[in-house]
Amino acid sequence: MKFVVIGGDAAGMSGASRAKRNRPDLEVTVFEQTQDVSYSACGMPYNIADPARPIEELVVREAQVFREKQGIDLRTGHRVEEIDRGAGKVRGRDEAGRAFEAPYDRLLIATGASPIRPDRPGFNLPGVLALKGLSDGRRIKTFLAERRVRQAVVIGMGYIAMEMAEALKVRGIGVRMVKPRPVLLPWLTAELSDLVKETLEAHGVELIFGQEPLAVEAVGDGLRVVCSDMHLDCQMVLVAMGVRPNSELAAQAGLELSVDQAIAVDRTMATSDKSIFAAGDCADAFHVVTGKKTWVPLALRANRAGWAAADNVLGVRTALPGVAGTAAFKVFELQVARTGLALKEAERAGFQPAEAVIYSSARGHAYPGDSEIRASMVGDRATGRLLGAQMVGEEGPAHRINAAAVALHAGLSVADFSQTDLAYAPPFGPTFSPLLVAASQLLKKL
Amino acid sequence: MKFVVIGGDAAGMSGASRAKRNRPDLEVTVFEQTQDVSYSACGMPYNIADPARPIEELVVREAQVFREKQGIDLRTGHRVEEIDRGAGKVRGRDEAGRAFEAPYDRLLIATGASPIRPDRPGFNLPGVLALKGLSDGRRIKTFLAERRVRQAVVIGMGYIAMEMAEALKVRGIGVRMVKPRPVLLPWLTAELSDLVKETLEAHGVELIFGQEPLAVEAVGDGLRVVCSDMHLDCQMVLVAMGVRPNSELAAQAGLELSVDQAIAVDRTMATSDKSIFAAGDCADAFHVVTGKKTWVPLALRANRAGWAAADNVLGVRTALPGVAGTAAFKVFELQVARTGLALKEAERAGFQPAEAVIYSSARGHAYPGDSEIRASMVGDRATGRLLGAQMVGEEGPAHRINAAAVALHAGLSVADFSQTDLAYAPPFGPTFSPLLVAASQLLKKL
Repeated sequence: MKFVVIGGDAAGMSGASRAKRNRPDLEVTVFEQTQDVSYSACGMPYNIADPARPIEELVVREAQVFREKQGIDLRTGHRVEEIDRGAGKVRGRDEAGRAFEAPYDRLLIATGASPIRPDRPGFNLPGVLALKGLSDGRRIKTFLAERRVRQAVVIGMGYIAMEMAEALKVRGIGVRMVKPRPVLLPWLTAELSDLVKETLEAHGVELIFGQEPLAVEAVGDGLRVVCSDMHLDCQMVLVAMGVRPNSELAAQAGLELSVDQAIAVDRTMATSDKSIFAAGDCADAFHVVTGKKTWVPLALRANRAGWAAADNVLGVRTALPGVAGTAAFKVFELQVARTGLALKEAERAGFQPAEAVIYSSARGHAYPGDSEIRASMVGDRATGRLLGAQMVGEEGPAHRINAAAVALHAGLSVADFSQTDLAYAPPFGPTFSPLLVAASQLLKKL
Repeated sequence: MKFVVIGGDAAGMSGASRAKRNRPDLEVTVFEQTQDVSYSACGMPYNIADPARPIEELVVREAQVFREKQGIDLRTGHRVEEIDRGAGKVRGRDEAGRAFEAPYDRLLIATGASPIRPDRPGFNLPGVLALKGLSDGRRIKTFLAERRVRQAVVIGMGYIAMEMAEALKVRGIGVRMVKPRPVLLPWLTAELSDLVKETLEAHGVELIFGQEPLAVEAVGDGLRVVCSDMHLDCQMVLVAMGVRPNSELAAQAGLELSVDQAIAVDRTMATSDKSIFAAGDCADAFHVVTGKKTWVPLALRANRAGWAAADNVLGVRTALPGVAGTAAFKVFELQVARTGLALKEAERAGFQPAEAVIYSSARGHAYPGDSEIRASMVGDRATGRLLGAQMVGEEGPAHRINAAAVALHAGLSVADFSQTDLAYAPPFGPTFSPLLVAASQLLKKL
């Protein structure tokens, strides 16, 4: 049986590896348009922060390992341009422009996502960069090494934007972040996003709201970001306005798309064509709270989805329960974490939500070195069910949030969650940890 | 209605406060044998570590606040010596030796636990100290301030023993820990306790196993701990051999006792006499995994049990789900955390358990400053259910363990837990966090 995989990153390579390992006689071919496979994309901002570290440190497994040790026919520099479902073939071109085609019995689309780049003047100028693949990271690092960048403009204020703002500040570069909308992290409750804002500003990152970046111009040896009412001069522009799924191939082949134009898959990762699977940032998922489709392009899901697709390709039925939308990022000394639905998301999903926001100590009573934690919890008035939680602070949010994430998977009520036996010791928190306090407060509103 | 509380620590004061707050016309009397109420007992080792910090920093709420602001008749220095169920009265003596008695309609026993002190020669000598109440902490701090302690012997190797070993080392005191049994932390899987052992030894704490401390002798101006085959000279002995519930009063009154001689209570904290409640370290609890009685004297449960007792005293039926046995402690740079059942505990409880032990990075691939995490997970072969987890490492175990604790409350299977959507970002862990890796490995054994 021939198993063809389009895309050699997290989902693609984990799917290819698992399929080949569990069925060594399977012919597994992976087409990857770049030269990079199996690297820590999420690690790029931290690598970029340190000029001394080669970007290749982020490679988890070299291409030749997949080829020689795992027996996968991995073709880098091969871009698939068409899925011919009728013929059961994919067609494309390699880096030299040579056409290729390959028949498949089962196909896995793992084409990932791409940064959104607005179709506006100057966004293709040198020095206007985005971060998604390792080649992007390499490009940014080379640019920073070769050019004297004193000032950078980051367009967007999502988590990649913030991680990159921190990385650039660590390198001594002035950073201004700009976005058209007036709110930082609109999915985050105001009291929590205030803390993020204060932290960014305390580190000298300038935040400019309400300015639409209309064009980028080359000015002298620098760049100018022209916004609605102002312009920002710099030597580098990072476009971090979010990502969109690479679903064009699938769409052209007539496969069904869903939320945010992600490829629609069932719980087995099968697309609307049962011989074609999709996994990773290009595909959608079920949300464990709403039960509905969502698009959350994150690494853990991508790896799991690749494995699940491989199992199902081999006829071992594997259904994934879906995602809770759990995510965490670091911005300077702050950790920002979320799981499940924010208040507005819960309203839009048809719940009757209430929210509690609490401020807590990160450590126990009188334990030295305390810092603040702010937490929000959302529950459903109609059913009492826990719907989501958010947390910001210096100590623990990225780990603490997982207690709520598990509760979402289990469908716990806020009342049940409020009685869970969480660890307590003074170095790690107050007797009632922030999520328990949030649950108690939320209970009063339900 | 008269509500009498015996014991003014976590469970007693939280129960008294809640009852009075929710029913201001209730006559609430608390008898506390010491002068200390409402303090962070768990914070004592960290306070003792720092000679500059007064022990009174640990007081959360002063006695006069309870008396004057909350209207609670709080009688410190009052020791209850008898519960006369027939007459509906408690009787005792105050510090001056004066007898008192008080009638009750509802009684809450919150007498806590006491350190185990062996009935052997010299264990009552000055300088042979134990740590449980604030008066113990004060005594230790005074002793350390007044005497030149260069070498201390800690008898026992449980979590208080380790926290105190660290505190004494921080103060520049040499520490030897001794116990009769051959194993450090027998409830902790060997690969995990090895890391604790290495850490203690790396900080110069000497661990002596297989030696029974038979007596303490005064030698010159110091002390000598006489063991089976050796003796240990020092200036201070800390007895940290565990605690036992203060259930004598209850037993003498004919109330039912259970596991470890703790006072037997139902889910509403009622004892075998429905007008008498018990809460905190003196009372038992249901274990959410076994469904059976257990005795886990920890602060979070004590506070919750005090509240639940108060609600039920007021006729608001409140049933607690029980405990998962979640606990965490710090020993030098290491965090040790557990929830649910260890392998042997699961066997004894009648499960058919399997265990997986994994070693993981604390941070993501190539993220600087990594450290090791070791995790163990136990599941039931018969049902696939998650039974427990343990974790040791420098970053996150005390918070990470709570994801598993919530799963135990929800009765999740190992398979379901292995698919939970936990937060990932490189500063905080690998894509698959240690508990997810442990779950995947455990699944192969179930």
